[in-house]
Amino acid sequence: MSGSLIIAGLGPGDEAMVTPEVTAALAEATDVVGYIPYVARVAPRAGLTLHPSDNRVEMDRARAALAMAAAGRRVVIVSSGDPGVFAMASAVFEAMEGMTEWHGLDVRVLPGITAMLAAAAAGAPLGHDFCCINLSDNLKPWAVIEARLRHAAQADFAMAFYNPRSASRPDTFAKALDVLRDACGPDRLILFARAVSTPDAALRTVTLAEATPEMADMRTVVIVGNSATRRVGRWVYTPRRAV
Amino acid sequence: MSGSLIIAGLGPGDEAMVTPEVTAALAEATDVVGYIPYVARVAPRAGLTLHPSDNRVEMDRARAALAMAAAGRRVVIVSSGDPGVFAMASAVFEAMEGMTEWHGLDVRVLPGITAMLAAAAAGAPLGHDFCCINLSDNLKPWAVIEARLRHAAQADFAMAFYNPRSASRPDTFAKALDVLRDACGPDRLILFARAVSTPDAALRTVTLAEATPEMADMRTVVIVGNSATRRVGRWVYTPRRAV
Repeated sequence: MSGSLIIAGLGPGDEAMVTPEVTAALAEATDVVGYIPYVARVAPRAGLTLHPSDNRVEMDRARAALAMAAAGRRVVIVSSGDPGVFAMASAVFEAMEGMTEWHGLDVRVLPGITAMLAAAAAGAPLGHDFCCINLSDNLKPWAVIEARLRHAAQADFAMAFYNPRSASRPDTFAKALDVLRDACGPDRLILFARAVSTPDAALRTVTLAEATPEMADMRTVVIVGNSATRRVGRWVYTPRRAV
Repeated sequence: MSGSLIIAGLGPGDEAMVTPEVTAALAEATDVVGYIPYVARVAPRAGLTLHPSDNRVEMDRARAALAMAAAGRRVVIVSSGDPGVFAMASAVFEAMEGMTEWHGLDVRVLPGITAMLAAAAAGAPLGHDFCCINLSDNLKPWAVIEARLRHAAQADFAMAFYNPRSASRPDTFAKALDVLRDACGPDRLILFARAVSTPDAALRTVTLAEATPEMADMRTVVIVGNSATRRVGRWVYTPRRAV
């Protein structure tokens, strides 16, 4: 039996945003691996073993999945959103470094709707050049984040932020808002998109002057417009032309 | 009859990447509007009128779609990839500006798999902070593009480029490669992903020193890694940690 490892994106939450190729991969899997709430989205069935694991054990999870694939299992690692955007794909390839016996494995990445695309469906705030930054300082120092925010503002990128705020680092997002107000001015629009595409979904667009850290949590994607981003009716959009 | 306008993303080409909500919207549409090759992906059926139009008529197409929705039709505008990323969503909201009679319409954006996510499935080159730039200079001057490339390099973003090269502007991408070699050095990895997810798909990863303008065309998405992006086996990935 020839094993395989598929790293699949489940999208932001709504089952109607899961691509058919991901659904098909799950139907053929012998083992599904991932963070507890993502594995909970996969229906149990005979012949399928679910392997839910806690947050922050990405490398252990990646190695366990690779070892199962090497042993001949058809393994799917599930991520929310897209597996390549601040999710499990990078951890899997990191786990493969130096493990050349795994380099012949059938490893595939199946894309998904990443949260910023679902959040941007509040209009078209990412309709011009943009950047995408993980605001968690677990894996990089604050100085790197601040430098990236300032370059992004000078480049006049719209900006999408993942993991803006958590209980373990309540101050990072407040500092980010201070940098953004300094670099972009008080009138710049900022969109808070919480739990997009789920029953808990909440969208709110304010100016940077009005924004407070409490408007974001770990289920929120934040989008800051560029200098031309504006409201039209109940939507917010960024024009296709540079200013 | 109450009309509606849905701006839907068809993904990069493979029908297995079209989300079920987009498939459902197309099944309920009375009218499908879009660029000729995208409308060609929608199967004709009784009760559905297809409105294919040429490239570079985005504003006319958006106004026509809004007018049909206002007249009570269930209109779907199709984009390839995601409608919010260098596609039709921004044009629709631009067309609505100043047309307050259209602001009460039921307008929705349904996300899709944008090309950079499908291209990134060659590994995980977008696994850390990144930016996304449209290299076409139709809607912005070259000086803006160059400034963005230099800020992106200084921020150490991975970079995804849409519309890198076309017959009408053969030199822009050559200039971009020169800027990138200057700003990122010759050893930086660059991924050319042509026609991802289609039968014509071709992936190629080289260094900036090896890259030539001819490696890209209008069907290519280009991804430049950050300073830590590297190969593992036949894949290319960007580590989750900052250098």
